Amino acid sequence: MDKAESWLYKTLHYRFDDADLLKQALTHRSATGRNNERLEFLGDAVLDLVISDAVYRARPDASEGDLSRLRASLVKEKTLAVLAADLGVGEYLVLGSGEKKTGGHRRESILADALESIVGAIFLDSGIEAAREMIERVFAQRLDELPAAGELRDPKTRLQEWLQARSLGLPEYELVNVTGKAHQQKFEVSCSVGQASDVTHGTSTTRRKAEQKAAAAMLEILLEDQA
Amino acid sequence: MDKAESWLYKTLHYRFDDADLLKQALTHRSATGRNNERLEFLGDAVLDLVISDAVYRARPDASEGDLSRLRASLVKEKTLAVLAADLGVGEYLVLGSGEKKTGGHRRESILADALESIVGAIFLDSGIEAAREMIERVFAQRLDELPAAGELRDPKTRLQEWLQARSLGLPEYELVNVTGKAHQQKFEVSCSVGQASDVTHGTSTTRRKAEQKAAAAMLEILLEDQA
Repeated sequence: MDKAESWLYKTLHYRFDDADLLKQALTHRSATGRNNERLEFLGDAVLDLVISDAVYRARPDASEGDLSRLRASLVKEKTLAVLAADLGVGEYLVLGSGEKKTGGHRRESILADALESIVGAIFLDSGIEAAREMIERVFAQRLDELPAAGELRDPKTRLQEWLQARSLGLPEYELVNVTGKAHQQKFEVSCSVGQASDVTHGTSTTRRKAEQKAAAAMLEILLEDQA
Repeated sequence: MDKAESWLYKTLHYRFDDADLLKQALTHRSATGRNNERLEFLGDAVLDLVISDAVYRARPDASEGDLSRLRASLVKEKTLAVLAADLGVGEYLVLGSGEKKTGGHRRESILADALESIVGAIFLDSGIEAAREMIERVFAQRLDELPAAGELRDPKTRLQEWLQARSLGLPEYELVNVTGKAHQQKFEVSCSVGQASDVTHGTSTTRRKAEQKAAAAMLEILLEDQA
């Protein structure tokens, strides 16, 4: 076994029949030779299915929207990059000299793509069950600590749901202030709820984002009051 | 077997162990009872993987971008709706009374979602291989007649590639005319190529779309001249 094969066997307990697939999975398009872009295409779909299946089973009462948010939180580039870095993928990447010099082995997109490519390579090498085992190993902790179904909804939605469940009416958002020149504007929005005396504020680059911030602050107050 | 089960067995040669899954797959959210939204979430991912795998194998030299376009053309709502209608899915849908009255059994999104839900139901009932068989049966003709890898690239890209392959320089696009009021504007763009005397035109609601039309017209002329 070469270095990359030993590493994969040690960290993920997987051994390739066709070791060229692993080499290809670790080869970024900046390097010469067959790169991992096609494997990434395939691995992305394999990962999506395995994670979809896992969240479907783990949250039997979740809506389609909540399932989509749970899946998105697991397969987004940032998550994949952290998992890839934890596994030490960066050390085995094959990069072009430009990417090497500019720290490509730490770049999130390159790490995430390589992890998906390894998934695709295992799928081609041994089929879906081997890929599933590898994915469940890599995601074990995150699947164990999967958030509740509704936890990933945005603050405005959660605030509205919380109020409706208590027949407390809808929250009101008001634009309080806009500062800054065009394209650099800051929006300040207030959020108030029925008879409650608390008013929260949120400021951001878009009105919608400012509303989300104000809603998050209101939710925090309401949940604290309740506790 | 009930009517829907017999239909599925006749058209797709699949028989459910758990017939409730089929019923759920055919139940739109407008109806009461367990609807197909969660199955659709799962089926969408199963379909994506099976089609990704099929185009990956069918086009061993295609780039990741071309593979993505091939897949997108197969799994887009319009394609799924046509396939679902051909299978006769509409006849077995369970809809709320409102959707029934307004022709929901012919609505593209409802048909496409139901087809994905049936895929998800078969996946849950028997696993990925049974789902793959069903998908390959439904998509048989489209996979047989899969376009060449580059055929789905947009006209501007294909025109540029055609010219570069012949060292003929880049096409030039010029905005010729803008008519209509704001939000209803029409852009007219011309396309010319090196020394060639032909100039083509395209008109559309955005400059980019107008360029694509002009490029498509130019490609047609060049490919005809060549033939």
